Amino acid sequence: MHKEILEDIGERELINRLAKFMPKNQIKDDCALIQTKNNNLLINNDSMVENVHFNDIIICPKDLGWKSVVSNISDLLSSGSKKTIGITVSLILPAETEWIWVEELYKGINKALKEYGGIILGGDCSIGNEKIISITAFGIQGEIELRRYACKPGETILTTGIHGLSKLGFLIQNKTSLNENISLKKRLVRKSIEHFCRPKIYPYFLKNLIKTRSNKKIKRIGCTDSSDGLFQAVQDLAIASECKAIMNYAKIPKHKDWPKGDKWDEYYFFGGEDYELVFSLPKKWAKNLCKLDKNISEIGYFAKGEPAIEFKDNDKNKLLKNKPFRHF
Amino acid sequence: MHKEILEDIGERELINRLAKFMPKNQIKDDCALIQTKNNNLLINNDSMVENVHFNDIIICPKDLGWKSVVSNISDLLSSGSKKTIGITVSLILPAETEWIWVEELYKGINKALKEYGGIILGGDCSIGNEKIISITAFGIQGEIELRRYACKPGETILTTGIHGLSKLGFLIQNKTSLNENISLKKRLVRKSIEHFCRPKIYPYFLKNLIKTRSNKKIKRIGCTDSSDGLFQAVQDLAIASECKAIMNYAKIPKHKDWPKGDKWDEYYFFGGEDYELVFSLPKKWAKNLCKLDKNISEIGYFAKGEPAIEFKDNDKNKLLKNKPFRHF
Repeated sequence: MHKEILEDIGERELINRLAKFMPKNQIKDDCALIQTKNNNLLINNDSMVENVHFNDIIICPKDLGWKSVVSNISDLLSSGSKKTIGITVSLILPAETEWIWVEELYKGINKALKEYGGIILGGDCSIGNEKIISITAFGIQGEIELRRYACKPGETILTTGIHGLSKLGFLIQNKTSLNENISLKKRLVRKSIEHFCRPKIYPYFLKNLIKTRSNKKIKRIGCTDSSDGLFQAVQDLAIASECKAIMNYAKIPKHKDWPKGDKWDEYYFFGGEDYELVFSLPKKWAKNLCKLDKNISEIGYFAKGEPAIEFKDNDKNKLLKNKPFRHF
Repeated sequence: MHKEILEDIGERELINRLAKFMPKNQIKDDCALIQTKNNNLLINNDSMVENVHFNDIIICPKDLGWKSVVSNISDLLSSGSKKTIGITVSLILPAETEWIWVEELYKGINKALKEYGGIILGGDCSIGNEKIISITAFGIQGEIELRRYACKPGETILTTGIHGLSKLGFLIQNKTSLNENISLKKRLVRKSIEHFCRPKIYPYFLKNLIKTRSNKKIKRIGCTDSSDGLFQAVQDLAIASECKAIMNYAKIPKHKDWPKGDKWDEYYFFGGEDYELVFSLPKKWAKNLCKLDKNISEIGYFAKGEPAIEFKDNDKNKLLKNKPFRHF
């Protein structure tokens, strides 16, 4: 008899199956939520596993500490957190780990907390065969709830920043042969490594959203982050909100030195770990926000229809045949 | 040059070193704390690592799920949690893990939550080389704060339940030769396996404490749980509270079939994973509580002096020379 293993199931289907054990389907959104009388608390846990998400060759411990915090705060922001309270840090480390590695990791953790707010609330450390940094971050829900399921047909799809850079940074750090006869511009190389090792987030995103809101009655908008790639983010929004995403390839913001070609499109749409916010807004609000924040671009719109992604530019639809980003 | 690795440092010293990275020294108590206007939130994270805390031979996935929840709620209770809100579950699993294993794990998790309260608030799953179950549990701080640092000279030291059983259960499940010419009673074997695989906790502990309190002005008492062994628990209290523990060997509650001998004393005091509560109370309160709850025993008292443990019975002090319970 064939025994069904996780590799057969895949990451996304696993998440769907785990959801049935939970009274609230919060595993499908970016954060869990605890309701209290005054504030709702947003909670997010992300684990970084050695040889899955990192190794000592591609990222130094200080950058890893920074990135572990940022990946968690990014999820809080993508749910509409107005303030990061703090984090707990759970480490699994092999007994032969050098103390200096731990010290550097914590320096990176505290550097990110100093930059984006929050303190270390507690933690523990166990022994194991591979390094694992598991961080739980706590934030306070702000005035607008950002949820995957809140996109609506007719709304503009937007994204912060530029995608694909983190993937390119990973490939460069990993000394993967890019197998091309092109030489990458130095500033693209530098920017990509920076995106992979020291990703940044948008702490003013919620404030700018509130500032540009055209209709104060809107308390909830559709949003997620692109930690698993831009396509996955748009697809997650489409599925959770039950509508169709129409993307406009010509409007996708790229780094000015980003090469052309199918492989580069694949890195762009499926790369992952960019920690950009992907969201949708009513047209007027979208226009106002793009005017205020030059880091934000319109990349398409939602329409009525079965949850799916389509390109406005027909010849780009072949891109959708690529497999989504997955760790297993 | 010799590079300092974690094995040289040891678990306890590592915790001390990590504490310096944290603005609040909460790593030294059982839980982290988030203060909100109405309620204070207690947070605890515990990770179970394959081949450190468990393997598939000594515990089945359903029991492992139960135990992972219980070990977390035990820490909440030992800080004075009056209600478990819920947990987040972060899994690291090898790609070849069978789905049925995951399903059974979640059944055990939900069984424990049904028994002791709380829901699954969220979670995630990543791929890794060994199984890791990392649970973060959230509770509401009750009327009495239980803290490691709050023991006072003159107070009686008490414990719930019986120690050593979980260690014996582990040895039996692991088929470790006990190297003795004695045969263990069947009911001791059964009870020990139960303690190791399906440990219980004391959800009414805080209520009983409040019910028997002789002086309503006392809002804080010294407490921890014995997840790292009874000696470690008493030592943690003595160090955090800066007083000396005098233990009364004759009063230590043992299972009636527990064999005599130095090795059995070692299992008893250093075994770990018993999840009993170890705490101190003013004499009168201690008497009242023992009368109300027959699971609770007086085992000594705190005195002024350097943080240390001593036995009232002089010939038992040799026990203290044993190394404390540690995973590395």
